[in-house]
Amino acid sequence: MFESAELGQKIDKQTFEREEPQLREALLNVQYDLSQAHRFPVVIVIGGVDGAGKGETVNTLNEWMDPRHIHTHAFPEPSDEERERPRMWRFWRALPPRGKIGILFGAWHTQPIVDRVYGRIGKAVLAQSIAEIVRFEKMLTDEGALVLKFWFHLSKDRQRKRLKALEKDPKTRWRVTATDWERYKIYDRFRKVSEQFLLQTSKAEAPWIVVEGEDPHYRMLTVGRLLLEAIRERLDQKPVARLPDRTPPMLPRIGHRDVLVNLDMSAKIPRAKYQTDLERWQGRLNLLSRHPKFNELSVIAVFEGQDAAGKGGAIRRITGALDARRYRGIPVAAPTEEERAQPYLWRFWRHVPRRGHLSIFDRSWYGRVLVERVEGFCSEYDWMRAYSEINDFEEQLITNKTVLVKFWLEITKEEQLKRFKEREKTSFKRFKITAEDWRNRKRWDAYHVAVCDMVDRTSTSIAPWTLVEANDKYHARIKILRTLCKSIEDAL
Amino acid sequence: MFESAELGQKIDKQTFEREEPQLREALLNVQYDLSQAHRFPVVIVIGGVDGAGKGETVNTLNEWMDPRHIHTHAFPEPSDEERERPRMWRFWRALPPRGKIGILFGAWHTQPIVDRVYGRIGKAVLAQSIAEIVRFEKMLTDEGALVLKFWFHLSKDRQRKRLKALEKDPKTRWRVTATDWERYKIYDRFRKVSEQFLLQTSKAEAPWIVVEGEDPHYRMLTVGRLLLEAIRERLDQKPVARLPDRTPPMLPRIGHRDVLVNLDMSAKIPRAKYQTDLERWQGRLNLLSRHPKFNELSVIAVFEGQDAAGKGGAIRRITGALDARRYRGIPVAAPTEEERAQPYLWRFWRHVPRRGHLSIFDRSWYGRVLVERVEGFCSEYDWMRAYSEINDFEEQLITNKTVLVKFWLEITKEEQLKRFKEREKTSFKRFKITAEDWRNRKRWDAYHVAVCDMVDRTSTSIAPWTLVEANDKYHARIKILRTLCKSIEDAL
Repeated sequence: MFESAELGQKIDKQTFEREEPQLREALLNVQYDLSQAHRFPVVIVIGGVDGAGKGETVNTLNEWMDPRHIHTHAFPEPSDEERERPRMWRFWRALPPRGKIGILFGAWHTQPIVDRVYGRIGKAVLAQSIAEIVRFEKMLTDEGALVLKFWFHLSKDRQRKRLKALEKDPKTRWRVTATDWERYKIYDRFRKVSEQFLLQTSKAEAPWIVVEGEDPHYRMLTVGRLLLEAIRERLDQKPVARLPDRTPPMLPRIGHRDVLVNLDMSAKIPRAKYQTDLERWQGRLNLLSRHPKFNELSVIAVFEGQDAAGKGGAIRRITGALDARRYRGIPVAAPTEEERAQPYLWRFWRHVPRRGHLSIFDRSWYGRVLVERVEGFCSEYDWMRAYSEINDFEEQLITNKTVLVKFWLEITKEEQLKRFKEREKTSFKRFKITAEDWRNRKRWDAYHVAVCDMVDRTSTSIAPWTLVEANDKYHARIKILRTLCKSIEDAL
Repeated sequence: MFESAELGQKIDKQTFEREEPQLREALLNVQYDLSQAHRFPVVIVIGGVDGAGKGETVNTLNEWMDPRHIHTHAFPEPSDEERERPRMWRFWRALPPRGKIGILFGAWHTQPIVDRVYGRIGKAVLAQSIAEIVRFEKMLTDEGALVLKFWFHLSKDRQRKRLKALEKDPKTRWRVTATDWERYKIYDRFRKVSEQFLLQTSKAEAPWIVVEGEDPHYRMLTVGRLLLEAIRERLDQKPVARLPDRTPPMLPRIGHRDVLVNLDMSAKIPRAKYQTDLERWQGRLNLLSRHPKFNELSVIAVFEGQDAAGKGGAIRRITGALDARRYRGIPVAAPTEEERAQPYLWRFWRHVPRRGHLSIFDRSWYGRVLVERVEGFCSEYDWMRAYSEINDFEEQLITNKTVLVKFWLEITKEEQLKRFKEREKTSFKRFKITAEDWRNRKRWDAYHVAVCDMVDRTSTSIAPWTLVEANDKYHARIKILRTLCKSIEDAL
């Protein structure tokens, strides 16, 4: 696949100097339109052979474009902030928002390729990384991002010549490092691994574009024009709704059982027992959070449930047992402007805790397959793909030693009515009941179906849902505390 | 994800007997409409826990439906015919054509799951299989197939009870084998592996549908209704053109070099040298084909090139050196009716040779990214996805010890004109020149671009393209013979 990038492409200086000013102007214009339209982000991924002009390309792009709307991120050795989070966290941080261009210099492709070249991972692990990356990029393009992946290539012979030339010139000598020569020695292996990687991560939505790197005029005109055309074309496209997608078949509701119906909603604990149990489990949780090994893991607790199911109260029973420096409570409401300009999961990724910390989500990323699905806030395509995106997300969390507990608090329709009425009566609780709560209540059955589907599609052995019978608050709180403690204990 | 299938769902006999006749009638009707519409095939995949009623479900479906339009394939130990081909070959053979329903009982999912459960493959290899299967199923649904994957589940406890019950009854005792009990012992591991597999191969286009297997009434009503609804829904959908897909960015043609322009079209061999070389290489090829180890591999040679580039002549120089029992020449023309009713690559899969044999394709699967692209016979989406489908196909061939050589025969526009005119003059060659040839010639430049893209996206280190300067037929034939011989030698 590198044939076309080993031809010795050249553009003479004159041609370049004639074309450059026009191209720059056109790029500035398209950048302005992109920012005005505010419809999608542009993600530029830069990879390739050493000495093929990656750095120069990034510099020239920054020089050509309006710096207010373009940002470059490089990814050297991860910081400790980054090392304590899942591998992809640093890339999520670097994603450009809608209307902007982000240049990712050496992105998610680098590590797997290098690890494979040096034999640190086998073929199968590489294939696994590739599959993850394909899913990640699919998510990006599904979310609307324009993803342009440039691979700068040099033939072996040209790479050698170029490294030599750079070394000879005192002005550029510093740019050639021992690593460059070391990599040159394994050029053939690097080429083979890259080829496989590039082929398998080239999808119609986000193919790699291989550019011959040697001649800077050719390289810059190629990158500049492609960037221009791709952004312009996307801007000109009418924002189309996604395919009236083939509806995935769902299980017909036959029979009267489901995971919610099957709960024993009469479960309860008397007040006195609750008091002792509460003390016992809160004490246990506190001890666990101070266990020396606790600093090697993170904890995420997710709370979902009907309105008035008692999420807030249950969360307070957890936080009450913890040092405030250890946890963050994250109430999930409407996304901020900054969050709306990013892929759906971005606003949850930003709250992924460091080691030794807990994040407690009052509502969560499951909003997509619950409220957004039921209320029609997103298309069917969007909530259907969310199941696997969520599974991917949670798998990354768990791989990174996160204890993930997910609670669905279930109350009966009668119990909810009772609680709504109480809230309306009690002055300090009145703020807790809104017209929206009454409206959601009307969709009770639709939510019921959505919850069952959610459990079917996202309750896994590594990240199971705990369904909590919450008509009795005491029972619910103790079950939640107990589940949380046991999960942490299992992980320690 | 198995929560909903461990609830003890039951439908009483009365309800079942009331519903069954209506369901059967509706299924027969939808089957008739499916066959009349002749628009898409239905692929039913059956998997799950032993004893969960897989076999009974298949039997009942066959009983309910019109046997002319439904076919069941089971996949026991592969035959030697099958073992000599890539792993997926047997499944390609079993795919139902448009308008029909195919039940695949234990399909491509079985081997990877079982291998992982018994520890024969590691986590990463499983992930690799999963990625391959996802791509394969994506291809199927992209080609229009309705893919329904049923997973029949039983909880551990119920599985034990059921096996016991079957054993007790003399009429069913034979159905419980030692393997069943052996698998029961590793139920937990099987469950865990299956869960991972099911989650990761559940895509919006082809999700797994987990059905509780114990109660036959519940099971059959569920499967029957889902089948009915899914086919009916698809039939009711207007056949929509695929998304006005985001155009993937292609390299702008800057500079004047490309892989074809760079060829030295003046390359030639004098007649005398040709005669000796021909004899030498043909002799070598013949010897190679009789090498004892030749029976451990297969050879596929692909010929593409402009009209009148000399493909036929070159092929005859190869076949002339071979025992006719060893090779098959496959001229690729318009697909037959049977082939049109299948996914695009199906008609090439059927010609994949056994070990010790050569298949020589005069034009090939590359038609999709050449003539079909240039003439607009398929959508942009279709030819774009073809690149990776082809790469997947060829990778499977190579993994299966196939020597794959791919030749593009390039002639200049002037040379083609000369040959066309000759053909028109020579009576026995006149049949070789048609109006279509003249029409293709008008699209010379579009073909040129398509060939360059094809080389960029499908020339890989494991399956490289050989570009052949074919203005001189002698030079071309010798280069082809030599390349073929060297490739076989490398593999022996």
